[in-house]
Amino acid sequence: MIDTPLPADLLARFAAIVGERNALTDPDLVEPYLHEPRDLFHGRTGMVLRPGSTDEVAAIMRLASETRTTIVPQGGNTGLVGGQSPRSPREIVVSLSRMDKVRAVDPVGRTLTVEAGVVLKRVQEAADAAGLFFPLSLGSEGSCQIGGNLSSNAGGTGVLAYGNSRDLCLGVEAVLASGEIFHGLRRLKKDNRGYDLRHLFIGGEGTLGIITAAVLKLFPKPAGREVAYVGLASPEAALQLLRHAERLAGPQLSAFELMPRIGMEFTLRHRQGARDPLQTPHAWYVLIEISSSRSAEDARDTLEAVLTEGFEAGVVDDAVPAKSLAEANAFWAMREELSWAQKPEGGSIKHDVAVPVALVPEFLAKADRAVAEAMPGARVVAFGHLGDGNIHYNISQPVGADTAAFLARWHEMNVIVHGIVASMDGTFSAEHGIGQLKRDELAASKRGPEIELMRRIKAAFDPDDILNPGKLV
Amino acid sequence: MIDTPLPADLLARFAAIVGERNALTDPDLVEPYLHEPRDLFHGRTGMVLRPGSTDEVAAIMRLASETRTTIVPQGGNTGLVGGQSPRSPREIVVSLSRMDKVRAVDPVGRTLTVEAGVVLKRVQEAADAAGLFFPLSLGSEGSCQIGGNLSSNAGGTGVLAYGNSRDLCLGVEAVLASGEIFHGLRRLKKDNRGYDLRHLFIGGEGTLGIITAAVLKLFPKPAGREVAYVGLASPEAALQLLRHAERLAGPQLSAFELMPRIGMEFTLRHRQGARDPLQTPHAWYVLIEISSSRSAEDARDTLEAVLTEGFEAGVVDDAVPAKSLAEANAFWAMREELSWAQKPEGGSIKHDVAVPVALVPEFLAKADRAVAEAMPGARVVAFGHLGDGNIHYNISQPVGADTAAFLARWHEMNVIVHGIVASMDGTFSAEHGIGQLKRDELAASKRGPEIELMRRIKAAFDPDDILNPGKLV
Repeated sequence: MIDTPLPADLLARFAAIVGERNALTDPDLVEPYLHEPRDLFHGRTGMVLRPGSTDEVAAIMRLASETRTTIVPQGGNTGLVGGQSPRSPREIVVSLSRMDKVRAVDPVGRTLTVEAGVVLKRVQEAADAAGLFFPLSLGSEGSCQIGGNLSSNAGGTGVLAYGNSRDLCLGVEAVLASGEIFHGLRRLKKDNRGYDLRHLFIGGEGTLGIITAAVLKLFPKPAGREVAYVGLASPEAALQLLRHAERLAGPQLSAFELMPRIGMEFTLRHRQGARDPLQTPHAWYVLIEISSSRSAEDARDTLEAVLTEGFEAGVVDDAVPAKSLAEANAFWAMREELSWAQKPEGGSIKHDVAVPVALVPEFLAKADRAVAEAMPGARVVAFGHLGDGNIHYNISQPVGADTAAFLARWHEMNVIVHGIVASMDGTFSAEHGIGQLKRDELAASKRGPEIELMRRIKAAFDPDDILNPGKLV
Repeated sequence: MIDTPLPADLLARFAAIVGERNALTDPDLVEPYLHEPRDLFHGRTGMVLRPGSTDEVAAIMRLASETRTTIVPQGGNTGLVGGQSPRSPREIVVSLSRMDKVRAVDPVGRTLTVEAGVVLKRVQEAADAAGLFFPLSLGSEGSCQIGGNLSSNAGGTGVLAYGNSRDLCLGVEAVLASGEIFHGLRRLKKDNRGYDLRHLFIGGEGTLGIITAAVLKLFPKPAGREVAYVGLASPEAALQLLRHAERLAGPQLSAFELMPRIGMEFTLRHRQGARDPLQTPHAWYVLIEISSSRSAEDARDTLEAVLTEGFEAGVVDDAVPAKSLAEANAFWAMREELSWAQKPEGGSIKHDVAVPVALVPEFLAKADRAVAEAMPGARVVAFGHLGDGNIHYNISQPVGADTAAFLARWHEMNVIVHGIVASMDGTFSAEHGIGQLKRDELAASKRGPEIELMRRIKAAFDPDDILNPGKLV
């Protein structure tokens, strides 16, 4: 990559589009746009542009197209695969942060039209204010932006009942590499007019266009949501409990999260005030949440029925329903802290895999054996969305090991874990996407003409390769 | 279009792939593949091939690609826009009918892997046999095939609770124009590995590839399903009832179908044994269905709560819950006969439109006025999926009018109705697709770069334009 800076007059032309105040070159101001959560990639850029409207984004792309300048779109900068990180002084970041307006609410059709830069938490709040519910929920919801969520097809804890980001979006507005605007802000539940381009921009990681606004689906607000913390002996037991829950709760089952004992121990050790919801230790835990459209009592009844069946079937060893909203939040915090609680334990090698739900226990058993063999003492913290077959198979370094030496084996461990996943027709990127981190692996892994088709689509949308190059495909 | 027949030696090469028995040229045998339900298009073809495997489909496409022969994929031949109809003796039909195997059932992950030629009814039955439920349901389910359902992103009556065909499919296997096979039969609920090509094949109407198999999502079988027939004064009242139902029933609301009095009258007049479920006539009707994962009693309780609220709010004038399965089926038959019952009344000009749900009453009022003005005496039979904003706005000819003269005004009436739809950001093809019927209208209607992007995608997948040309884009 050529590292000569972009010419000053070109930067001035870009700056003129958004105004000097919104064209950042001061290293201190630019810095926040260069770091990403895991520090796997350190970004470099010539300028950060903060457009305030779709028309400004379009003007940026027209100029970029005319001058073949590389543009890296960025939302809340919370992505975990480096998709939002610029790679050189010749790349310009377009941050969507200032495009943070809620454009419209339709309480009858249950849609919310928002600009790309609206932070997920604010989307949830806007839905709530309209007496409705937006179910996308993830750890970074206080800072990630809906445009980034859609571009990466974010998952999270609500997928079981409501689907991925892809499933929660009826339409998008996007600016193409050429600067043309794709006007797809549809509020329609059904629309069969040709190829569904929306599904390319969603999950396209900003390589096919810059999502500038979206129409989101809202749902009736659950009248009651009840949570229980369950102790069990094994992933097999958890899978059996899942089947009971699915049968008894149907679409009311809104979360089913699997957690290992070691994660609980890390959290108890490192988070002040954390306490084990159960009396005695268990090898595995499940956080189960039931949502009822009717009442809290209805949700409680269903939850009790699920736990009772679980006890009677011998798959549940202990369980405690949350007795208050505060307690429910504390249970959820145990789940959400799992990733964070690994940090004080040293280096951690991450995986974001999924296999068919029925194969999760077999996957865990095989991967645990292979990891133990390759790296004695490595501590596996495997947790996640069992109902989706999606496990964050994270590996904490052996106690006392050298962190740098441990992290140097990241790729080697990926090969081991992803090999087992592949043998089960699973995926090495269930919800975090491809970005820079997994681009080579994607290219190497796809059978048949799939990568070639992706490349042709990229060329069809962005013939000069100016939109987020070096990411995804 | 050049109408010289394809050379005999070329036909022989195609026939050799599937065997003589499955290569049809006898006009009597070919005839069923040329008619489509509305007789708007009369097909012409050089040969009908009936491959028995994905490999045979791939061999056909390799030969087609080598010889630039046009291929028209066809499922159950129930499409309503001519997408499945061949247009000349130089086009070869590839019927998927013989590829009718259920390949796998996964009761834990709740997936069903089927070949494209499995009839929808058989898909439903296979799900049922596994103790699960496949919700796609439409009038032609006894003969339409799942491959065609996916290629056209079929809708139907289950969309409200479960989504379109697109939402019910986790993965597809497809043969490309080149004869290469896209291996996308994934059973994963989450998979963020690059552009989601599945969503191009789904709804692609066979122009980007031939879907040969699919992984379908199954759902817990409802423990109870209860139906009521409701009489109301207006579409506004129906919309208010919908809001009560959505709030009280949440995801249990599995159907909400709007029907006009005139449709009831047509059915009573032409279908032997049909009878009005209600004592007195009403201007409008709603068929409402509640599904419970728990019990029939639970579904009944919810249904009763919805109807009670509807009565108290003054939006329901009369309502009768079905007292038996036979009665529930009879209620559903009243809905399903609506299209059929128009036939004995003479010509009918069809529309398949959707607008944002909140705008349905306004759309109906405007369209009724415009139609009455343009064609006094025309009888509007507007019915459909109110919860999806999807109305089949059909126009029966004035009593005693000349049918041919009436049908000659098809395009004129389309322009009137679709103009109103467009002013509401609606769609002129909600669930039936584009095919031949609406191709020009699609090209004329899309704003900005959308059609151009579709054409580039088509060229990227099928550079020689041999897969279902003249359809969709």
